[in-house]
Amino acid sequence: MTEGSDVSDWWRTSIIDMEPGRIDIRGTPIQDLIGNLSFPEMIWLMVMGTPLGPVQAKLFEAALVSAVDHGPQAPSIAAARMAATCGIGLQSAMATGLNMLGDVHGGAGEQAIALYHHLEKAGPDGLESGLSEWREAHGRYLPGFGHRFHKPTDPRAPRLLALVDEAAEAGAVSGAYAAIGRMIEEKLARDRGAPVPMNIDGATAVIYAELGCPGPVARGFFGLSRSVGILAHAWEQTLQGGRNKGPTPPHYRWRYTGDGHSN
Amino acid sequence: MTEGSDVSDWWRTSIIDMEPGRIDIRGTPIQDLIGNLSFPEMIWLMVMGTPLGPVQAKLFEAALVSAVDHGPQAPSIAAARMAATCGIGLQSAMATGLNMLGDVHGGAGEQAIALYHHLEKAGPDGLESGLSEWREAHGRYLPGFGHRFHKPTDPRAPRLLALVDEAAEAGAVSGAYAAIGRMIEEKLARDRGAPVPMNIDGATAVIYAELGCPGPVARGFFGLSRSVGILAHAWEQTLQGGRNKGPTPPHYRWRYTGDGHSN
Amino acid sequence: MTEGSDVSDWWRTSIIDMEPGRIDIRGTPIQDLIGNLSFPEMIWLMVMGTPLGPVQAKLFEAALVSAVDHGPQAPSIAAARMAATCGIGLQSAMATGLNMLGDVHGGAGEQAIALYHHLEKAGPDGLESGLSEWREAHGRYLPGFGHRFHKPTDPRAPRLLALVDEAAEAGAVSGAYAAIGRMIEEKLARDRGAPVPMNIDGATAVIYAELGCPGPVARGFFGLSRSVGILAHAWEQTLQGGRNKGPTPPHYRWRYTGDGHSN
Amino acid sequence: MTEGSDVSDWWRTSIIDMEPGRIDIRGTPIQDLIGNLSFPEMIWLMVMGTPLGPVQAKLFEAALVSAVDHGPQAPSIAAARMAATCGIGLQSAMATGLNMLGDVHGGAGEQAIALYHHLEKAGPDGLESGLSEWREAHGRYLPGFGHRFHKPTDPRAPRLLALVDEAAEAGAVSGAYAAIGRMIEEKLARDRGAPVPMNIDGATAVIYAELGCPGPVARGFFGLSRSVGILAHAWEQTLQGGRNKGPTPPHYRWRYTGDGHSN
Repeated sequence: MTEGSDVSDWWRTSIIDMEPGRIDIRGTPIQDLIGNLSFPEMIWLMVMGTPLGPVQAKLFEAALVSAVDHGPQAPSIAAARMAATCGIGLQSAMATGLNMLGDVHGGAGEQAIALYHHLEKAGPDGLESGLSEWREAHGRYLPGFGHRFHKPTDPRAPRLLALVDEAAEAGAVSGAYAAIGRMIEEKLARDRGAPVPMNIDGATAVIYAELGCPGPVARGFFGLSRSVGILAHAWEQTLQGGRNKGPTPPHYRWRYTGDGHSN
Repeated sequence: MTEGSDVSDWWRTSIIDMEPGRIDIRGTPIQDLIGNLSFPEMIWLMVMGTPLGPVQAKLFEAALVSAVDHGPQAPSIAAARMAATCGIGLQSAMATGLNMLGDVHGGAGEQAIALYHHLEKAGPDGLESGLSEWREAHGRYLPGFGHRFHKPTDPRAPRLLALVDEAAEAGAVSGAYAAIGRMIEEKLARDRGAPVPMNIDGATAVIYAELGCPGPVARGFFGLSRSVGILAHAWEQTLQGGRNKGPTPPHYRWRYTGDGHSN
Repeated sequence: MTEGSDVSDWWRTSIIDMEPGRIDIRGTPIQDLIGNLSFPEMIWLMVMGTPLGPVQAKLFEAALVSAVDHGPQAPSIAAARMAATCGIGLQSAMATGLNMLGDVHGGAGEQAIALYHHLEKAGPDGLESGLSEWREAHGRYLPGFGHRFHKPTDPRAPRLLALVDEAAEAGAVSGAYAAIGRMIEEKLARDRGAPVPMNIDGATAVIYAELGCPGPVARGFFGLSRSVGILAHAWEQTLQGGRNKGPTPPHYRWRYTGDGHSN
Repeated sequence: MTEGSDVSDWWRTSIIDMEPGRIDIRGTPIQDLIGNLSFPEMIWLMVMGTPLGPVQAKLFEAALVSAVDHGPQAPSIAAARMAATCGIGLQSAMATGLNMLGDVHGGAGEQAIALYHHLEKAGPDGLESGLSEWREAHGRYLPGFGHRFHKPTDPRAPRLLALVDEAAEAGAVSGAYAAIGRMIEEKLARDRGAPVPMNIDGATAVIYAELGCPGPVARGFFGLSRSVGILAHAWEQTLQGGRNKGPTPPHYRWRYTGDGHSN
């Protein structure tokens, strides 16, 4: 990029190389990628540094499509809609929504990948002991299974798993993590005497694990996916108008729980 | 979604409808979209509310692919890389980078769309007068043309325009905005006696205008696209390590320009 | 700070100078400021570059104290509380809340300063014409006057104005902007036949104008002040617990306004 | 605040109570706080819920004053300055800077408080074993001691400690955490045969521990303090101008470390 210099060396990347008139992404001129790579293929190439086969790319695309939105009660969406009424730009409103995502909101996918890897190491006969170890370290709740709202079934999960099965049949992925996920599902159903089905976090975690994507990156991919919903809602709110939109109709206000004046 | 209530009415959306076990996006069950819609098609459906034809979707995809990155000297990318060394999550690092985008950084595309619309209203014989009016209102600089770095040509722009031409030949778009963009290009070259070619902002603005996308939304789409580069760089920096990465190697520090102690 | 270098020169500041073992703020060793300067005096010195007299500092302090909070229905506060349940750090939750502030939420103070400066230029006999000009350019609504909630009076405004009067009597400020603000108040009352009293934005704008603070900086100071409430609420919510707190109790959900499934 | 309702109950706070014309902060009308409480006293009251004695308030103020800035090489400051050239508002630029603060950048103070509390429990004779336990759990590095830049001494630390001593003499604080901090300092000097003096994080942690402030809140207070520097630098950069300011002068660019084109 430039002559040797400690200043240039302070910023090192293998993602992009540039000269006037030339932009190479992961070693390929960008004009050869535009129109030839799908957006999911470009996302994967940028972040992971390697190309993705066509069947794998479809699987990745399905994961990205599935997580775009869960409605205005999700903190990320609500915040973006409120931000859109506060007089900041649409991109800042997007950043406000995206900045809500963390260990709790949008973190379960990464945790589910870790759970699958843990059980993979425990081996086919180690499900029982592997789950016990996991729960001792992380608590009773298993990330990626059950849903407080979508009962009995999160409609996205079986559809995503069916796509994993198709990709496994086509030899594009091993199917090992789908099998682990289903073993957990069956075990939970046996233990509880009622189904605790895989949710979207568990199902996208299967896909990301099948594709060899590290947990933190899976969380980043969730961020990209949810950014779509954040943008859609911020824009819809912009069209609806409003100024300083609060969380509830103004006349409800809040419950004061301190001493002094009571209501 | 729920029984009539002023509380539910406070949050109104036509994007998503839900019941336990059911998620409809723009009126279609999400399991029917997963695996069938491409990610760009889902983005458009979510934000614009209408489906996009297959050729148009490819054009949109090309725009999304083209703007993912411009290297670590872009403030959005630099900020995300620094953030990745500060001990916040990857999604917060993404938000930090995304929050750099505004009227100046990532705003030229929206402005170029406004310019094209202005010239469209001025009509085929109104280029000269239309440009004069624009410059009187907005200053001499025309958004979307020329590049301080990519000389003579931004390699992304001709590739994107070629894809617009193909789509126009296929009847998927009118080609009207590509024509306007080229008229501006020719006029600038005549006036300056040297080429001032369309850059990526001008070329993606052609695509967004051809697709009927409002200016602010085009800026949001740029945010989605650049988020890919932000994530890729934040992750690469995470792997490189570092703590509290500053903008330059530490021994350079900064120039103190105040009174008192001098150096 | 370092030997001459274009790299160091890229970052120029008169705010801070450092060497190993030495930190000077605006030319004074920081250990001479710690314990001697009040926090408001330090804020002013840092941002404006000049010291503030003791009476003026008290006035500035009153403005900072007055704007810390307006309850959980303010988007900035609601977003910070929701963020505190999403598994990001307290400082990221603060950033989420702060990032809600813009032209609409927290922008009226800057606009009120602009209004006062406009009327100052119009002169003592130009109130009528000055207001007409302002309204032609910016719309009927006058920033800083009236309150959708605090009727008849925003309790912060008269208290702040009384402190300006005291400072004017002490010769620390001119009182010119308090006079302009009151002229507007009287004119609005005459025109409407009912009081439209100055609100907190109008009153803090009087203080910032009296102190010679530019409009955008006044907005930044509002951000510092409101950050206190943002932190307080984010911490209280942290102690209350909760996961992925949405804007309303979950069973209310939202109103779906699209076609397809109806409810 | 309102009639009993599950909607109002969803937002519960003991910080603020309001009716039209009335704003009570922690049970006191806000007009009685404005002009009477210092800004640090208001910050403490808001966040901690209890008043602070005058000597304690001075100590808290010193901590807030001491941490406002560490120059443009700190990621928070650099990001805010870059943001100020990207066409977003000053408050969004502040949010961008603030969002850099996390476990690594601005997290040492919280960790130092945890270290002090750990050693407090270990008791006066448990320094050796307490430090060993801490290092086994958290690694060799002790938060709050040593500085990569300020050698031999961070000028803020001794000044802050002297103020703690004065407050302890006045009976406003116990001085117990200052003693623990100094014990660590002496131990480190003995072990290394060279001074590893307390830095600003260690010294402000002493103050926050003396005042009974939980670790996460101390980190929030650091965020409030550093926001001052973030605002000052964002504003100075705004006055300096620039567009899309990157981290280094543009001609340096970055080091490409991938395959393909080399430079």
